[in-house]
Amino acid sequence: MEKLTVIKIGGNVIDNAEALDKFLGDLSGISSHKVLVHGGGKLATELSARLGIETKMVDGRRITDEETIKVVTMTYAGFINKTIVARLQAKGCDTMGLCGADARLVPAVRRPVGDIDYGWVGDIQTNKINDTLLHMLLQSGVTTVIAPISCTSDGHLLNINADTVAQSIAVAMSKNYDTTLLYCFEKKGVLRDVANENSAIPYIKLCETEALKSDGTISSGMIPKIDNACKAISDGVAQVVIGHAGDLTALINEQPGYGTRICR
Amino acid sequence: MEKLTVIKIGGNVIDNAEALDKFLGDLSGISSHKVLVHGGGKLATELSARLGIETKMVDGRRITDEETIKVVTMTYAGFINKTIVARLQAKGCDTMGLCGADARLVPAVRRPVGDIDYGWVGDIQTNKINDTLLHMLLQSGVTTVIAPISCTSDGHLLNINADTVAQSIAVAMSKNYDTTLLYCFEKKGVLRDVANENSAIPYIKLCETEALKSDGTISSGMIPKIDNACKAISDGVAQVVIGHAGDLTALINEQPGYGTRICR
Repeated sequence: MEKLTVIKIGGNVIDNAEALDKFLGDLSGISSHKVLVHGGGKLATELSARLGIETKMVDGRRITDEETIKVVTMTYAGFINKTIVARLQAKGCDTMGLCGADARLVPAVRRPVGDIDYGWVGDIQTNKINDTLLHMLLQSGVTTVIAPISCTSDGHLLNINADTVAQSIAVAMSKNYDTTLLYCFEKKGVLRDVANENSAIPYIKLCETEALKSDGTISSGMIPKIDNACKAISDGVAQVVIGHAGDLTALINEQPGYGTRICR
Repeated sequence: MEKLTVIKIGGNVIDNAEALDKFLGDLSGISSHKVLVHGGGKLATELSARLGIETKMVDGRRITDEETIKVVTMTYAGFINKTIVARLQAKGCDTMGLCGADARLVPAVRRPVGDIDYGWVGDIQTNKINDTLLHMLLQSGVTTVIAPISCTSDGHLLNINADTVAQSIAVAMSKNYDTTLLYCFEKKGVLRDVANENSAIPYIKLCETEALKSDGTISSGMIPKIDNACKAISDGVAQVVIGHAGDLTALINEQPGYGTRICR
């Protein structure tokens, strides 16, 4: 099977013009197949503030009312997505920017209202990813860049979680590709000692994750990432790598000393 | 050759929720191949105003400074494009939203500074349209919806003219499809008497357009549309139709009494 890397970048890279440029340069240097999923960064919050729209977060999740879904669609699927496309084109990487609504790439349903009404937030229908489309684009030499926006079946836009988009796509593509899911963020991996940036654990086996949660090595913000990683591997992804966005080339080349690799 | 219709809609449809919904319902009912190109409407101007960015127009063209290219990318390639995609998906029409920068669909260069510096405005490289990509998408049953945004070769976003995008795409596709270019706007066609909405001229031959300009029948805002139409036909498009967005089905079905048809 051909190799494919599904890469997720978060706000820390998007918000830093220099870091983003280095990252996109490194990305364009990868010769094997790749799909990029991006989050939103601070731009949506900044635009909301300039427009006088209050940003409401609950447990790190954005409450997405009618005005906010417009703002996130404009920033994620508009400015950020097309800026990345234009920059990658300039670096010689043929790129297409899509969101989850395009060609039913990442179908979703509106999250049911429980204790909290998240508004226009969607839960991904993980078994309905349009892997046929992604396969066709990859085989045409096109790198796809995906914004975390989808829509309801009756045509309303939805805000979806970029980490879960990346995981769902990696799982769907692993039927036909030897797929690595790569979460790029602001740390060098799962750190044995949070105070020591150079203490990334090189390898974690799926069966070891629960023990690392129990002893507190995996805590707070890292827990959902690891849970996503475990789900991805259980569902067929070859490996999940967690590392620093600035180390993209080393992470892709599996250079020793970079990132944390989670495998079966 | 298979039939293809390249349809351009302008701001008057986009700004009116009810008219847009009817138009997209009619569009989803067209069984033959179609590509939709949309303009921007008032949204970019409104968003600029809310953000305190001054809108400068010269001869109906937007001067696009660094802040304005962000606003038009957010509104055209973000909110408007993805809103249309979501609505068409809901109506059963499988749709992908792109801009000219995606997969080098509509390459452009920044307009040279002459008497006026238009800023980040692009001139389309009409001979470099990625018709291979559009052909692949059409043959996969996907309708493409295109926002008038492209980029420079060094990766800066550009505002491009939607009428010219539609014309360039129609010309490029006419190599492989029996292509009609359809300009939908707020009038029923080229009117013999501007005061009479029901005086649309049914047919105009390419050789008759100069006389109609000379006698004043084709004037002001209609002149660039007709010039675009003549260029399209000279370059291989089978016919150009100009008509009211509310009459889409009748225009597509070539129902007598609807729109103005321009042909060789």
